[in-house]
Amino acid sequence: MDDRIREHAEVLVDWSARIESGDDVVLSIDEGTHDLAVAVAEVLGERGANLLSVYRSDEIQRAYLRAHEQDFDADPEFERALYANADSVLVLNGTRNTAGTADVPDERQQAFARAREAIREARLATDWVSTLHPTRALAQQAGMAFEAYREFVYDATLRDWGSLADEMDRLKTILDSGSEVHIDAPGTDLTLSIDGRTAVNSAASVADDSHNLPSGEVFTAPADAEGEVTFDVPMTVRGKTLRDVYLVFEDGEVIDFEAASREDTLAGLLETDDGARRLGELGIGMNRGIDRYTDNILFDEKMAETVHLALGRAYDACLPEGAVGNDSAIHVDLIAEMGEDTTLSVDGEVIQRNGVFRWEDGF
Amino acid sequence: MDDRIREHAEVLVDWSARIESGDDVVLSIDEGTHDLAVAVAEVLGERGANLLSVYRSDEIQRAYLRAHEQDFDADPEFERALYANADSVLVLNGTRNTAGTADVPDERQQAFARAREAIREARLATDWVSTLHPTRALAQQAGMAFEAYREFVYDATLRDWGSLADEMDRLKTILDSGSEVHIDAPGTDLTLSIDGRTAVNSAASVADDSHNLPSGEVFTAPADAEGEVTFDVPMTVRGKTLRDVYLVFEDGEVIDFEAASREDTLAGLLETDDGARRLGELGIGMNRGIDRYTDNILFDEKMAETVHLALGRAYDACLPEGAVGNDSAIHVDLIAEMGEDTTLSVDGEVIQRNGVFRWEDGF
Repeated sequence: MDDRIREHAEVLVDWSARIESGDDVVLSIDEGTHDLAVAVAEVLGERGANLLSVYRSDEIQRAYLRAHEQDFDADPEFERALYANADSVLVLNGTRNTAGTADVPDERQQAFARAREAIREARLATDWVSTLHPTRALAQQAGMAFEAYREFVYDATLRDWGSLADEMDRLKTILDSGSEVHIDAPGTDLTLSIDGRTAVNSAASVADDSHNLPSGEVFTAPADAEGEVTFDVPMTVRGKTLRDVYLVFEDGEVIDFEAASREDTLAGLLETDDGARRLGELGIGMNRGIDRYTDNILFDEKMAETVHLALGRAYDACLPEGAVGNDSAIHVDLIAEMGEDTTLSVDGEVIQRNGVFRWEDGF
Repeated sequence: MDDRIREHAEVLVDWSARIESGDDVVLSIDEGTHDLAVAVAEVLGERGANLLSVYRSDEIQRAYLRAHEQDFDADPEFERALYANADSVLVLNGTRNTAGTADVPDERQQAFARAREAIREARLATDWVSTLHPTRALAQQAGMAFEAYREFVYDATLRDWGSLADEMDRLKTILDSGSEVHIDAPGTDLTLSIDGRTAVNSAASVADDSHNLPSGEVFTAPADAEGEVTFDVPMTVRGKTLRDVYLVFEDGEVIDFEAASREDTLAGLLETDDGARRLGELGIGMNRGIDRYTDNILFDEKMAETVHLALGRAYDACLPEGAVGNDSAIHVDLIAEMGEDTTLSVDGEVIQRNGVFRWEDGF
């Protein structure tokens, strides 16, 4: 077995999911993730956890959904009971074809998802963690050779998470006590109010309510936005790739927008509902293992020297107890590089310049 | 998709498992059975059943069991609840390596199985069906080329099951009203008492309490045995292949035995307990799609022109209400060809001669 696969399994089980002896663990295995699943099973055995493997295949899903013409039963009890009785769900992503369900009608997929809301809730109520095993299909999506993509994935995933969590905590402390964030970059001059908001240290561990491996971002929910911002990292939304999105905010709301490609898709997103024109998230990427765009939000938004803003729904974890954040049916992340000629400031103090934080060498 | 795979899926879902709209179906997918799983998912979608796929991998099982040094938890509830709430379990067998768990200690495997007795019972309480998808590993075990093995599997599986069920019912009627079976063949002169016993028409449908696809045998539980019998079809038991087993019965009990290979294994089996020296089953193979030995009990015991006898435990379905049949920790099938110079008689009347039943052409 590739040492990196074994190490990935250990990080997933021990750091991310915090599995202990006797835990009931559902291992959700995508078509292309068999090798990682074997390694995870070994680590789960060593820890004395109980294991049930479920198989998540786009090809099976496609065949089933296309054939299923009737209404879907609401939350079949056999599946709901599985998750309701589980302690952890480890989701191994790794498709063999990113277009595997391209010919399943959207309405069918949405009806299926709607019918299974209680199953989804039972799954999200566990200590779930979602991770990625490199496949040729994902390498292709990233525009990379397979071996180079594997190096990329392991650089992003096999990090010193404890040390990164400590570093991210410095940023969280600054954001939690701050009132105003200012982002200055070519095409960007944006002010965000964060008064009273709480940042989340997303260090790939359920102990911090962080459910993705890899992770590596600190995020909060801005209360207001004023100014203009350019997102120079492409973002694929519902199969459409938006490029060079430019937004102008006034009183927290988008009042003007442009995009170099798929401006129509952007316009549609903004018209979803009132909340779709306001921001739900400010995220700051801090994973230096992620040094390039790979058209996969699990990685892209964690990329070091980037910030991302999400149009739409805010996470409750960032809000004061009982407060209601921005609400919307959408949550669309848009990413901007923080390279040359950029600063990120909190209450007038520069905390990152040209992508380098003030506690790093070279600031 | 290969038409035979689609047809196999239809036979499994409709004839064998009798799946209906709204049924909660667990699809248990072996490493090498993905293509059949896709076809089964399509048919389940058409029928409006609910589907959850579990993944059964020898490699995952090996990694988990070898690593698991602690005691196993008894019947983890998340898995028990899944099966307790399911209507059907469709088990697709098709390993990629028949020796995949060869280096897992027997004691570990047995301890794991013992700890999960309630899960097993919950699974067997559903309308479960076990079938086989041809893989290269299974072809190799059979000593056959892959394409030839596929032809063999589909010849055995894609039959006119309704018609075979009718034919098998003729034999069941004869056995149910009979008192004594006599088997006469080279090296065999055996009399079995079947008075008051009920035969099972095993036609690959849960409607007849038959849980294997393919099937094609009529079996009952003999009450007594007298005489000698030679089993000329090899039988692999716990990884050891017995050849040319010869048994002598007196008052229902084995009093002498020989084997051309693995006589030591045979001796060990006979010493398991008192019931291991007595017969628990007489089965008569009637699947003419199975015309050769492939070292797989799911197929071998259904082979046309064979009978098999099992040392050990009897099935309750063959006994009068409330009666107790032969009891043992083992149930080891041994198979004899019924070719030239053979007769199978019930109460003195020949019902099969040289492998041909009396209702068939050429009798």
